[in-house]
Amino acid sequence: MPTPSDRAAIVGAGHTRFGVLTEGPRELLSRAVAGALGSVDRGMDRGDVEEAYLGSLGFSGWQLGNSATLLAEELGRPGVPVSRVENACASAGYALRAGVHAIESGARDVVLVVGLEKMTDAPSRRRRYWLGVSGDTEWERLAGLTFAGVYALLASCHMQKYGTPREALAEVAVKNHRNALLNPNAQFHKAITREEVARAPRVADPLGLMDCCPVTDGAAALLLVRRSLAARYTDTPVSIVGTGAASDYLALQERASLTSLAATRRAAEEAFRRAPFDRRALSLAELHDCFTIAELLALEDLGLAGPGEAARLTLDGGTALGGAIPINPDGGLKAKGHPIGATGASQAYEVFQQLRGAAGARQVPHAERALSHNVGGSGASATVTLYEAG
Amino acid sequence: MPTPSDRAAIVGAGHTRFGVLTEGPRELLSRAVAGALGSVDRGMDRGDVEEAYLGSLGFSGWQLGNSATLLAEELGRPGVPVSRVENACASAGYALRAGVHAIESGARDVVLVVGLEKMTDAPSRRRRYWLGVSGDTEWERLAGLTFAGVYALLASCHMQKYGTPREALAEVAVKNHRNALLNPNAQFHKAITREEVARAPRVADPLGLMDCCPVTDGAAALLLVRRSLAARYTDTPVSIVGTGAASDYLALQERASLTSLAATRRAAEEAFRRAPFDRRALSLAELHDCFTIAELLALEDLGLAGPGEAARLTLDGGTALGGAIPINPDGGLKAKGHPIGATGASQAYEVFQQLRGAAGARQVPHAERALSHNVGGSGASATVTLYEAG
Repeated sequence: MPTPSDRAAIVGAGHTRFGVLTEGPRELLSRAVAGALGSVDRGMDRGDVEEAYLGSLGFSGWQLGNSATLLAEELGRPGVPVSRVENACASAGYALRAGVHAIESGARDVVLVVGLEKMTDAPSRRRRYWLGVSGDTEWERLAGLTFAGVYALLASCHMQKYGTPREALAEVAVKNHRNALLNPNAQFHKAITREEVARAPRVADPLGLMDCCPVTDGAAALLLVRRSLAARYTDTPVSIVGTGAASDYLALQERASLTSLAATRRAAEEAFRRAPFDRRALSLAELHDCFTIAELLALEDLGLAGPGEAARLTLDGGTALGGAIPINPDGGLKAKGHPIGATGASQAYEVFQQLRGAAGARQVPHAERALSHNVGGSGASATVTLYEAG
Repeated sequence: MPTPSDRAAIVGAGHTRFGVLTEGPRELLSRAVAGALGSVDRGMDRGDVEEAYLGSLGFSGWQLGNSATLLAEELGRPGVPVSRVENACASAGYALRAGVHAIESGARDVVLVVGLEKMTDAPSRRRRYWLGVSGDTEWERLAGLTFAGVYALLASCHMQKYGTPREALAEVAVKNHRNALLNPNAQFHKAITREEVARAPRVADPLGLMDCCPVTDGAAALLLVRRSLAARYTDTPVSIVGTGAASDYLALQERASLTSLAATRRAAEEAFRRAPFDRRALSLAELHDCFTIAELLALEDLGLAGPGEAARLTLDGGTALGGAIPINPDGGLKAKGHPIGATGASQAYEVFQQLRGAAGARQVPHAERALSHNVGGSGASATVTLYEAG
């Protein structure tokens, strides 16, 4: 295990607006990187960046191969080693982890991690294909099971096993839309009610339109440095003190449980084993709420709620801003938007802002420790990252 | 920099046959992994593998997202963290580097790295698309420049600048086909002559059909462990003593030179800076000869021949088995085949065999130190890896 001074710390972060954007992938990369460099308190020269990782699914197929090179080009540093890490919706979570390994191995002192996805320029008849590739191909996609259908199965099982009420799913959407009102980068700035969620068109029963995250363009960038060098750049770094990752079967039919994601549980167990604090010390968490049921599953799998108890915690306001453990203060995938490969980096961006007290109207008071949780597909891959101010 | 005992060492390696195969991606993964586990002298339990990396372009689009999970499934270890690294034809070179970082960071002791590509089941009218995605999209692919066309431009420039004779390109193919006769896994077992290369149909002038590597299915797997633990598994590990990586502009028009790949030069400089030996100590090298001109460029960019001198070295037999520096004893991409994402791992497989004296009829006598060189696209990304027996 690395010593605390050889861990990675975030010293800068950038974020484009999320939504249906006119900018193409190059422009999104360029803006996120410029934002990250510009955010470094004492400045950082782009020449300081020794290596870069791009998390991206490559949605729509534009520059599907070798796309990490776009990052070197838009960084203005052709020559710097770059690689693309692709684990579906967890691409940037794994790219972040690769960046942490590059620093902790001693190979690099300054690493750039960027998440990117341009989704809305894909022809609409192809979007279902591109979303489907993140789940199992042989037994799910080719058989016609959509992504919403997969999560609808998980929701049905959870409701049956624990009596999880439909209102709890709705409340996840209501809470995340409320939080997004305070996030200028969010795709949706629209408060919704439980009744509106309930009345929305069904997508895959029991999930309706407002249980689903949107299709989104966007990018987010993180500048990581060796913790011992952080003072060159800022007095308020955010240290990455634990990472965990795990996989599971792609197809639901192979899994041991449909009311829990084993990859999340395993990744969390590993991350907390490496970190100097436990779950009770968390000030907030960024969870992967691609569908409303996913936030409930994550609360339970991460040990932030007992099995079957996430619904109650949510309905009681425990996950709201001001609650016991604020979840997705930035609006989450549901309301901030979910540009697939960008999400893991966007979550870390939010944690960086929160743990520096720079999150503005959505600031969690006295935030010192946080968790981010990024899921690939329907849980075939997951990462958990733990952060501490300083 | 890690201490020698904290470096990564290869203790096992597996390789499928390369060629037009009936097996699908899962089967190829499964065979390569089983081969690697079965090759470990004192045995290795699949439960020892703590993390795995998959290098794959995802050619043909089958399970294009989250495909690293297939590796966990076929390893028989759903749960183990897996990630896909994609840098076009350099995917496995970068995946290998990610595996090295995971060990050198202290995060892992045992890591599996697999390269995979299934190419021949792509509809033929789509193959050009899938190959093209590894070069620049905006200025090359969408303008109609094929991959062979890109390398033909590089060949033309090299011939013009240095007077490189057509026969030197042909000799690369002749030599690699001759080597492949000694490699049971190679796609081609067919000796060819310079005259046959010259008479072959033109693909993109000056390159003909026999200057181009084939379309290939295949997989290769590597088991890496912390060097200090290698004795549990074998008395003859192969240590990875230096890695380097670099990028360049995707489009040729942006580059400083068309007679050299800057990414190769930069990656080599970094790898040798980290290694305990220099170029003169190499017993052999595995170079990325996707087209014949690419082997000549690599010889010069890696400093194994002076600028413009690779043709003479090749025509004089200096790169043949028995020559001063044997290049691609396994047949190279040209004759062994080039399953895109598998190539970087296949190169390391060959080095592992050679440095253990296990390469059979193609064994380079007294091989102790080697280099592998993996290029993405037309040189927008490259890795160089240095190995030592023991």
